[in-house]
Amino acid sequence: MIATLYLLYLGNSTDPFGIKTARGLAVFRPELCVGEFRRDKCTLTLDLPRIGYAEAVAAGARTMVLGIVNAGGTLDPEVIEDAIAAMEAGLDLASGLHQRLKDDPRLARAAQRTGRKLHDVRDPPEGLRVGTGEYRAGKRLLTVGTDCSSGKMYTTLCLQRAMQARGIACDFRATGQTGILIAGGGIPLDAVVADFISGAIEQLAPARTDDGWDLIEGQGSLFHPSFAGVSTGLLHGAQPSALVMCHDPARRVMRGMKDRAPPDLGECIAANLATARLTSPDVRMAGIALNTSSFDQTAAVSLCMRLEDEHGLPCTDPHRMGVEAILDNLLGTVPDIATRA
Amino acid sequence: MIATLYLLYLGNSTDPFGIKTARGLAVFRPELCVGEFRRDKCTLTLDLPRIGYAEAVAAGARTMVLGIVNAGGTLDPEVIEDAIAAMEAGLDLASGLHQRLKDDPRLARAAQRTGRKLHDVRDPPEGLRVGTGEYRAGKRLLTVGTDCSSGKMYTTLCLQRAMQARGIACDFRATGQTGILIAGGGIPLDAVVADFISGAIEQLAPARTDDGWDLIEGQGSLFHPSFAGVSTGLLHGAQPSALVMCHDPARRVMRGMKDRAPPDLGECIAANLATARLTSPDVRMAGIALNTSSFDQTAAVSLCMRLEDEHGLPCTDPHRMGVEAILDNLLGTVPDIATRA
Repeated sequence: MIATLYLLYLGNSTDPFGIKTARGLAVFRPELCVGEFRRDKCTLTLDLPRIGYAEAVAAGARTMVLGIVNAGGTLDPEVIEDAIAAMEAGLDLASGLHQRLKDDPRLARAAQRTGRKLHDVRDPPEGLRVGTGEYRAGKRLLTVGTDCSSGKMYTTLCLQRAMQARGIACDFRATGQTGILIAGGGIPLDAVVADFISGAIEQLAPARTDDGWDLIEGQGSLFHPSFAGVSTGLLHGAQPSALVMCHDPARRVMRGMKDRAPPDLGECIAANLATARLTSPDVRMAGIALNTSSFDQTAAVSLCMRLEDEHGLPCTDPHRMGVEAILDNLLGTVPDIATRA
Repeated sequence: MIATLYLLYLGNSTDPFGIKTARGLAVFRPELCVGEFRRDKCTLTLDLPRIGYAEAVAAGARTMVLGIVNAGGTLDPEVIEDAIAAMEAGLDLASGLHQRLKDDPRLARAAQRTGRKLHDVRDPPEGLRVGTGEYRAGKRLLTVGTDCSSGKMYTTLCLQRAMQARGIACDFRATGQTGILIAGGGIPLDAVVADFISGAIEQLAPARTDDGWDLIEGQGSLFHPSFAGVSTGLLHGAQPSALVMCHDPARRVMRGMKDRAPPDLGECIAANLATARLTSPDVRMAGIALNTSSFDQTAAVSLCMRLEDEHGLPCTDPHRMGVEAILDNLLGTVPDIATRA
């Protein structure tokens, strides 16, 4: 177990997407976060107090979370330096980077010297099995996306909150480092050996008979050339009753790509349903979750209404408008969108 | 490097698909194989001399290849016992199983005691990167399939032989343990961490400007619930100019599944082209490679003709009929199949 409370490390980050681990904790577990550590070149903030290691310890922090992500997941020299200083001040470290803390000799030595712990939440569990695709009981929802970093974790957590508010049994099933830190458990899917992708999800969201929902955090995109394999295995392993499509309508170039445009939303919906049908023939799309942060309120509402019409699905920005419309459609608590007018 | 010659270990195998590593070596590198080791319950043979460890050493063998595969890739106790005996007789060990030889304490101790080497060809290389999907020069062909174990490696190697016979520069790019043992190199794709599947293939088959072909060994199937993630990443990373669809028309249940029927051939062709187009918009299907071993010659020829008509593609059994028809279509050396009659 990772000791709380947390100090969130932002370092010199300037890329808002790069700090999504830290932001996820700040948004969904604010009660665990005592502050943020920023270097002077950092242009971002999570609106937490900017504090140093000693202040954080004094405020009750036990672990510094390296809440930064870059493609490939490596540790910069300045991060190593800060991490050692944090350990010397009395903080454990937790990281979701591909490059393991414990594999860096400087960090390993510092941890031993200071008696601090190194948590690599991207280490997958032992004993994963190959997926079977066999039918299993239970209701499962998987978030998918037109791209990476399109709001899948955020949407899944919003759905969990909204379901819990309705008194429905449900569990958030985390598949990425941020989600795992938030949930306190899960499987870091991108670090699983390729043969076990779908099997890992079968294990993460096993058969369920309490009439509750497993809400599975999606990863990547079927249309992302780096990560579509992960997304495919996730769709097959999840055996989802329902999907929710997450989309950033302002994005012009796919995450981490030089000049690749995101896919057409309708094409992406169709492809995800087609892929999911291999293990879940009756799967349906429950709604579209937009990130409308680049639009004003009027434009955002108007865009949602247009996409509802175009795709015959409830469309909402979870942050601005909540997820009730998707939940109503999913649970059948209001007439189907097509007849809702 | 793995020392040759090889003794091929079949153990107690009774599943013809399970010994495909050994069979691949016997078929494509017969000059390297001095014999096969069979236990009494083994119902299979590769038509090599059945010999023991000492005889193998006397015949020049330096390595025993554990040429057996099971889903999950574990080591049975009897295999451990035989492997230790082989080392005591003077043989190194090579294995493509998920469970590493060097991770078994009994094997590790025996190797140290006898001074023999343990080769785990399923260990992926260090330093793999995330795929980019960016255009790169060169002609690349990827074999795909309706299922696992549908002849992808065999077809790729047949295409290599046939191209070499025509004096065309080409390289076999191995992605599985058998292919790696045959080629002397490659990347064991199913053991690569999920985030790096497509990147691994970009590294395995880099940009090429000599007008030659990279012939990439496919893995799994887009329609296999266990392994479709691997197949998806492989399609994206390969950025193939051409695909060849491998199919076993006699199969009723997919490999390793309880009761799942293989996909429709036409649907599988369309899905593979659609997925490949993400990184290679002009990709085309060059032909269909059938395994007709369950049919007599007349039925096999008749089936190939029927599928040629149905799909408008050359269709052949590489083992029985060679791959010239596919090569002609690929290279444009005869009129297109549609006008060939």
